[in-house]
Amino acid sequence: MTLVIVNEESVTSDSRRKMVESAAALIGSQGLTATSFSDVLAESGAPRGSIYFHFPGGKRELAQDAIRWTSDQVMAHLREGPTTSAAEVVRHFVSLFQHVAEMSDGAAGCAVAGVTIDLPADDDELRAEAQEAFHAWEALLAEQLRIAGVAKERAAGIATITVASVEGALILCRAEGGAAPMNAIAAQLLTLVESPD
Amino acid sequence: MTLVIVNEESVTSDSRRKMVESAAALIGSQGLTATSFSDVLAESGAPRGSIYFHFPGGKRELAQDAIRWTSDQVMAHLREGPTTSAAEVVRHFVSLFQHVAEMSDGAAGCAVAGVTIDLPADDDELRAEAQEAFHAWEALLAEQLRIAGVAKERAAGIATITVASVEGALILCRAEGGAAPMNAIAAQLLTLVESPD
Repeated sequence: MTLVIVNEESVTSDSRRKMVESAAALIGSQGLTATSFSDVLAESGAPRGSIYFHFPGGKRELAQDAIRWTSDQVMAHLREGPTTSAAEVVRHFVSLFQHVAEMSDGAAGCAVAGVTIDLPADDDELRAEAQEAFHAWEALLAEQLRIAGVAKERAAGIATITVASVEGALILCRAEGGAAPMNAIAAQLLTLVESPD
Repeated sequence: MTLVIVNEESVTSDSRRKMVESAAALIGSQGLTATSFSDVLAESGAPRGSIYFHFPGGKRELAQDAIRWTSDQVMAHLREGPTTSAAEVVRHFVSLFQHVAEMSDGAAGCAVAGVTIDLPADDDELRAEAQEAFHAWEALLAEQLRIAGVAKERAAGIATITVASVEGALILCRAEGGAAPMNAIAAQLLTLVESPD
């Protein structure tokens, strides 16, 4: 006889986490509107009954969590990066998106963008959630650039174009079926940070 | 008595054109998946019976035409622009997107991006259509930059980051509810083109 002790809370958190991860991948690659709970269940392997247990707020709550999960991944990646030079800060940030574009032949996208583009005009709460994610990335990037010696105003501008151009390049990579546009913007961002003030 | 002579062909082309324009606006601001023929009819004022007359290929054909219409608008804008300096080329291109972001408080988007993000993974034909649009913009921008004196390889890189960063900034503007991110990337692109080779 084998006695298996299952911690119920960790099982449910694990299944919830898998659903959020699957939702983030699906929303990034096909947009929010096309992403159904059925897709998320199929992708995550979670049981159907778990939807309203984990997400009483329905698809909106799932979208919100997918934004937060994506944002946390980006922030964690950024925090691991070097601040020895402005070029290294930008190179490290963009490398995450180069990896995503290369591994998926351009097909993978960003869940924050996938929600933002499909956003109903009156959904200010989800819009604010997406805004908060982009602001957090820009603020941490700008802070790291300042630590690396870039002047405050310039750091903010470089942070914004870095986030904007990786988001846009994900779209170009998707149309392209490959990572070439992401690699092209990476090279230009390095030229920009190395240009004189 | 007033005699009105109606040229039937021009009436139908006009109604078709209005539907394509409405579809481009809707797909840009809410994505392809959420855009229904009913929305397009409501927005364009076209009669319901005209859908399958004008678009026998259904929503896919409408999406294709929305991409082409958007691309034609961008190309026409670019062709009107100056090639006196690299900064003027970039400034003119981005001004179209600054105008769009400002007029809509960030809500308007790009139909080519709206189709690309919502694209079903197996729809290579629509993907190729989006790719062709982005390539056309990049090629004309690069050509204008070369005329303005930028070296060939550098012109191609600047063209790609310019297109990527306006597309990404449209997403940031949407999350922001305003045009600030588009104005920020415009300033950085000008710094980039004015930096030494």
